Amino acid sequence: MKIIKNIDILRNTINEYGENKAIGFVPTMGFLHEGHLSLIEKASSENDITVVSIFVNPTQFGPGEDFETYPRDLDRDARLAEGAGADILFFPDAREIYPIGASTFVEVEGAITKKLCGSSRPAHFKGVTTVVNTLFNIVSPHKAYFGQKDAQQLAVIKKMVRDLHMQVTIVACPIVRETDGLALSSRNVGLNPEERKQALILSQALNRARNLWKTGETDVKILKAVISDGINTMPLADIDYVDILDFNTLEAIKKIEAPALAAVAVRFGDTRLIDNIILE
Amino acid sequence: MKIIKNIDILRNTINEYGENKAIGFVPTMGFLHEGHLSLIEKASSENDITVVSIFVNPTQFGPGEDFETYPRDLDRDARLAEGAGADILFFPDAREIYPIGASTFVEVEGAITKKLCGSSRPAHFKGVTTVVNTLFNIVSPHKAYFGQKDAQQLAVIKKMVRDLHMQVTIVACPIVRETDGLALSSRNVGLNPEERKQALILSQALNRARNLWKTGETDVKILKAVISDGINTMPLADIDYVDILDFNTLEAIKKIEAPALAAVAVRFGDTRLIDNIILE
Repeated sequence: MKIIKNIDILRNTINEYGENKAIGFVPTMGFLHEGHLSLIEKASSENDITVVSIFVNPTQFGPGEDFETYPRDLDRDARLAEGAGADILFFPDAREIYPIGASTFVEVEGAITKKLCGSSRPAHFKGVTTVVNTLFNIVSPHKAYFGQKDAQQLAVIKKMVRDLHMQVTIVACPIVRETDGLALSSRNVGLNPEERKQALILSQALNRARNLWKTGETDVKILKAVISDGINTMPLADIDYVDILDFNTLEAIKKIEAPALAAVAVRFGDTRLIDNIILE
Repeated sequence: MKIIKNIDILRNTINEYGENKAIGFVPTMGFLHEGHLSLIEKASSENDITVVSIFVNPTQFGPGEDFETYPRDLDRDARLAEGAGADILFFPDAREIYPIGASTFVEVEGAITKKLCGSSRPAHFKGVTTVVNTLFNIVSPHKAYFGQKDAQQLAVIKKMVRDLHMQVTIVACPIVRETDGLALSSRNVGLNPEERKQALILSQALNRARNLWKTGETDVKILKAVISDGINTMPLADIDYVDILDFNTLEAIKKIEAPALAAVAVRFGDTRLIDNIILE
């Protein structure tokens, strides 16, 4: 596996593989866990060249968020990415992605970026779509792989690709969980042992709502209350949001009549966790 | 030459030319004149496939602007484009470019889009960059050709391509003028005979400033006054702006010490004309 920091070298390296090679791309912020590795393995199984990027993108962090403290470990990431089948690890500096004076942004407007994480992180998705658009332009992948864990990010990126007619297929991959149910996240390292224990409530409360829905309950208000009440039993849990929305458009719904997304964001101390479940 | 309205058919048609073909692209709003034809001829001479698009883009017109009355003549355009060397004329409906619910925008922020035309047409360049980005995604050109007549548009598009690392080369082509000096524009058909006569003052006033600059005058205030005073001698001329800026960044300057752009926008009745000259 090659580790490349420079855009021109990256493009030349990809070109050297020859023509008509299928390029799979897994954009990440590094500190890889099994969730990322499942994306890399899938990309590697479906393409001739698998490019993984590690870029902690400054424009998607707001003031006071965890850009500085976001965990980083390139050596470990390189070993893991190679083991999962990556051919190229793209590891650019911020200045390589955003040239001096860069001021162009790609933004998906409307409800899809205003709800859920968009409400507490107002400029977050503008940073996400700008950097993902830019990375797609740099790598020119045929397929790009994203985890269902960041459900809203996935919906927003799919919409950007569709709206701007970008020539890439977005592949969604299921959430990978610890054996006890906690969704894998690079941010989980920020939890102390007691927070780690209480954080289990996210998947448990979501499962409780799914079970109730499976027995016939379709009232969103009732299902949301089940999730909130569950999370609130944990004294260290501080809810950012609990919501159930249309799966594709992320629009508000009152009853579940089509695939829906139940999503939560909860703070434990300085660590903000998200989780979700698809009701379909 | 093929006339194509559908994106999938366009892509398939381009692919049928075979691999490794150089694709040249000339995006236009139609009602072609010699200026457009010079772009198509240049594209045709430098590429294997020349794609011309005609799309009067609704998102770059503001309320009360001339979207409805913008001149259109597909038959004539098709004849002219083919004569100039176009292989494919892409003529999509608005719904083809902007799918239902589309809400993704590409915007170059900062002074470069706030000055000149950006000041009287606040959402104009956001519409331009969004549609040009989208058309680039659809056509995947190696080179795209733009006229120096829309100097600010050219600077904004170059910046978008650079900032987002788009893989396309922007080729700037010189302004084409009538023998008496009027810059060609699809909007010139809106001028009545008297307005047409007085509109000559744009190129004359710009030339007067250039001549003064060539004799050693570098004070922007003085050169701008020469242009404004010249235009104001015409009773039907209503100045929107007269400005002299850094050629590359469009930033304000007091003295001309590097290549500069002298640009004007002037209304004659309902018709708004622009013109410019490079001082280098």
